[in-house]
Amino acid sequence: MNEDKLEPLRKRPIGVFDSGVGGLTVAKEIMRQIPNESIIYFGDTARVPYGSKSRETVTRFSRQIVHFLQAHDVKTIVIACNTASACALEELEKECDIPMIGVVKPGARAAAEVTRNGRIGVIATEATIGSQIYSHYIKELAPNATIYGKACPLFVPLVEEGLWQDPVTEEIARRYLMELIDCDIDTLILGCTHYPLIRSTVGNIMGERVTLVNPAYETAKELKRMLGQKGLLNREAPELGSNQYQFFVSDAAEKFKQFANSIIKYGILSAKKVNIEEY
Amino acid sequence: MNEDKLEPLRKRPIGVFDSGVGGLTVAKEIMRQIPNESIIYFGDTARVPYGSKSRETVTRFSRQIVHFLQAHDVKTIVIACNTASACALEELEKECDIPMIGVVKPGARAAAEVTRNGRIGVIATEATIGSQIYSHYIKELAPNATIYGKACPLFVPLVEEGLWQDPVTEEIARRYLMELIDCDIDTLILGCTHYPLIRSTVGNIMGERVTLVNPAYETAKELKRMLGQKGLLNREAPELGSNQYQFFVSDAAEKFKQFANSIIKYGILSAKKVNIEEY
Repeated sequence: MNEDKLEPLRKRPIGVFDSGVGGLTVAKEIMRQIPNESIIYFGDTARVPYGSKSRETVTRFSRQIVHFLQAHDVKTIVIACNTASACALEELEKECDIPMIGVVKPGARAAAEVTRNGRIGVIATEATIGSQIYSHYIKELAPNATIYGKACPLFVPLVEEGLWQDPVTEEIARRYLMELIDCDIDTLILGCTHYPLIRSTVGNIMGERVTLVNPAYETAKELKRMLGQKGLLNREAPELGSNQYQFFVSDAAEKFKQFANSIIKYGILSAKKVNIEEY
Repeated sequence: MNEDKLEPLRKRPIGVFDSGVGGLTVAKEIMRQIPNESIIYFGDTARVPYGSKSRETVTRFSRQIVHFLQAHDVKTIVIACNTASACALEELEKECDIPMIGVVKPGARAAAEVTRNGRIGVIATEATIGSQIYSHYIKELAPNATIYGKACPLFVPLVEEGLWQDPVTEEIARRYLMELIDCDIDTLILGCTHYPLIRSTVGNIMGERVTLVNPAYETAKELKRMLGQKGLLNREAPELGSNQYQFFVSDAAEKFKQFANSIIKYGILSAKKVNIEEY
């Protein structure tokens, strides 16, 4: 009886949002790990990036997107952006009557589990590092851990310029990562959704002894667990032609579509433009 | 008689705006060339950058800022941002009852005047290059000129990271500029307000034969000429303590102040935060 009541809820889509294209690495993991689910993705391409902006502004932008996704009847919201998870999740989940998860807590948990020497590095945007949120969550699980944060503001533009494997990206990565190598970390969190795209460059510099944690992967796993617990996992694949994956942006839909297709191989048919300031 | 009527107008400030900090290079030139003028500067730091966004979005953002500046009784508006000048000036000056100038036309005029072989390069953001506006204005003055545009999306993040003179910036600049060198240009427009800050790197790569045009300088000169023609130049310096230069931003006022002080040496006392979406 109770089960039946949930059935219409189960069929609802999952809302996923990011400041732009980076969150597609999270959406892709969700598609892979729970392929029965539908997704409504929003990328705030008119106001990207979030990583250099204040907590207050990031929260205001994120709140508008949450309203947009709620207007599309999503059953849960995934904040697929480290900066927005760091700055806005705690405040927004209080205002919201559906479950919401971010990428920070799953990433922090995985790092706390895999570290052996308790020395964990975090690379992320200025806003995420400034919030010290990874440190906060890791210490809840591993109180003796030491966390070393490093903001890497050039990584996002380098990734967006397509220099995923390039001597310039290597040189910049070497400069950013040098101090983390000196700290003798054994675990490094890729704390921005763009960074998995330069995973091999970062991995080569850090060396084999350092485990890289990708919060996109951990978040999809956590989402699956959470939906399962609440009885909200969709039991069968959506009907063919039912528009399983829908993409919305606040600007430049065509450019988004191109970049998105280079990350997700499903073939994104269209991305619609929305005036997000109205939400 | 007519002269007296203009006196209260003359004392009004000049409105200057940009997507962020780049327009400060224009504000600085205005301060230097017409030191009697007051300035109200707005930097849209919550939505920066504009250069990767669409014409429509840049126009919408710029319109809000024009409303904000008009609410502060400015006598004229300087669009101190190449992208906004390229995308929004023509539309917004039709909606506005005070004179408005951008940085593109003065830069184009200077380039048309200095070129000897008629081969002119333009480096700028994707949006400015995509608009082909420099080409349009230059050809009005020099119909036989050939214009070569090149978008340089990494220059703004590199400048904002402080790498004004750095091997990485040199390497990226070499890649971007190579095709312009091959085109045998003798004049290069620095078509983004951040670029004068890496002028020496660009100049070293292009060599002595190529003249660099800085639209910031040309715009201040054009503004002075235009205000003089209309009888709107302020005749005496504002009183001491009258807050001659005021700065407003849409986010992160403290960070803006720091960067601004590294460009303008006047000592920026404060920057106030404004919710620009309300205008």
